[in-house]
Amino acid sequence: VYVGVDVGGTKVLAVEISDTGEVLREAVDSTPGRGDPVSELEDALTRAVEGVADGRPLEGVGVSAAGLVEPTGQTVRFATHLPWREEPVRERLAARWGAPVVLDNDAHCATEAELAYGAGRAAGSFLLVNLGTGIGGGLALDGRVWRGAGGMAGEFGHMQVVPDGLECECGLRGCWEQYCSGRALERVFRVSLGSHLDGPQVSALAREGDEHARRAIATIGTWLGIGMANLVAAFDPALLVVGGGVSAVGDLLLDPAREALSRALVAAPHRTVPPVVPAALGPESGAIGAALLARRHAG
Amino acid sequence: VYVGVDVGGTKVLAVEISDTGEVLREAVDSTPGRGDPVSELEDALTRAVEGVADGRPLEGVGVSAAGLVEPTGQTVRFATHLPWREEPVRERLAARWGAPVVLDNDAHCATEAELAYGAGRAAGSFLLVNLGTGIGGGLALDGRVWRGAGGMAGEFGHMQVVPDGLECECGLRGCWEQYCSGRALERVFRVSLGSHLDGPQVSALAREGDEHARRAIATIGTWLGIGMANLVAAFDPALLVVGGGVSAVGDLLLDPAREALSRALVAAPHRTVPPVVPAALGPESGAIGAALLARRHAG
Repeated sequence: VYVGVDVGGTKVLAVEISDTGEVLREAVDSTPGRGDPVSELEDALTRAVEGVADGRPLEGVGVSAAGLVEPTGQTVRFATHLPWREEPVRERLAARWGAPVVLDNDAHCATEAELAYGAGRAAGSFLLVNLGTGIGGGLALDGRVWRGAGGMAGEFGHMQVVPDGLECECGLRGCWEQYCSGRALERVFRVSLGSHLDGPQVSALAREGDEHARRAIATIGTWLGIGMANLVAAFDPALLVVGGGVSAVGDLLLDPAREALSRALVAAPHRTVPPVVPAALGPESGAIGAALLARRHAG
Repeated sequence: VYVGVDVGGTKVLAVEISDTGEVLREAVDSTPGRGDPVSELEDALTRAVEGVADGRPLEGVGVSAAGLVEPTGQTVRFATHLPWREEPVRERLAARWGAPVVLDNDAHCATEAELAYGAGRAAGSFLLVNLGTGIGGGLALDGRVWRGAGGMAGEFGHMQVVPDGLECECGLRGCWEQYCSGRALERVFRVSLGSHLDGPQVSALAREGDEHARRAIATIGTWLGIGMANLVAAFDPALLVVGGGVSAVGDLLLDPAREALSRALVAAPHRTVPPVVPAALGPESGAIGAALLARRHAG
């Protein structure tokens, strides 16, 4: 069995996929905090991978990591929400699991998945903006994922949108993901209402029609559109794909984003503003892309 | 003779180049204001092109325009500093000059030139940031210029760096080129000293050691580094190439930019920060790239 496992800021998700990208099995575990020992994180990964394998021999594992992976896919250099720091993750996990391991950034994995099976199949070029704990991003161009000269393309979340803005866990200030992400949604809701709810709870309230929750999501959506306008100015893709947990609320998020995009994009009346569509693969996209890379690597 | 002509916000520059990109002849005219009739602009172009041709028959002309050119290269859709609005420039100039005309965005032309003959020759990928009246940008990737799905990639100057910031001629607010360009340099110098000097005059003062002028250039340089940090986070190129008139001051501009880039780039200690180098071709790069495209188109 080939397994793809996605290591996000709050959970670890492993999947087995079919030839056409459908999820056949999955297993979930929770992610330890970034101050916890590395071994706890790798134990959680192992539980998820073994949960999917269910006793079958592993032919290959793809690991999708929410962090900076160096270009040859050996090492996680830096991960804002994870304990990995310059860790030789690929080799260690391959030894532990007795199987070939492919390691890549989670947003690159999700971009591969959306390109092969999802919302980006028909577009020559698209940008993926994945709103989870933070923002992961990916660029697809002429049918290929652009990983960057150092494997670090797509760190959209750490583009500065507010000079001297909110502090970010990465050490900088005013990063886009402080204004547009699951954590940003929690913060906006908390500041406006004084209630501590997590992102999925705010989303659930919004779907039930709660005005405060809807306004908080619209605020995130507006920042989504502004940031995407910057990316479109620079890159001019045919399509914008929005994924990640926060995107599950759909048009409550995407409509304000589309509006802000049209307002903030240079020369909007003189160009085709790229459509903003939800990711087709949902929160499993990183794991699906990792499984795809594991299989591609083997064959 | 093949001629390349660059149409910038303040001047029109036509060149003839050798097979290896050297400028053999050039002619300059001034650009009419953006409120002036289109015919005045095209008269200025014609004078410059004929000045270079000097009676020899035109085999092809490349036009490098400071504006949004639609992807098939027929029309200038929008140009912040020029009178062209949805103008079928290619066909009209080809008829007027009796020669094949190739039309492209000035920054794409400059990127072609730096890729073929200049600072980007050895790099697999680079971004070009051209500081003139505004900012023109270009992306080269795996040895090819990425023009965008709609031919509009590289409009770096209209990425928003300050929410509700300075008004831009494009109709938006807080655009990067309001903080980092020739016009921005004039504004910063004027605000700090109350003196009305143009960009080249401020640059000349800075080279002579004037502290106010140096500080104004360092301010522009810091904004250059911040904006480039955003681009590197998104795109992760191997190299950053800075061109345009303002870049003629060299390290007075580029050192503050390098410093700000290292400070504002996500995970800088965990990655190779791309080198920031001056464009090799100077202010002729757009015209050189246009001449290259004219010759490539013919042959």
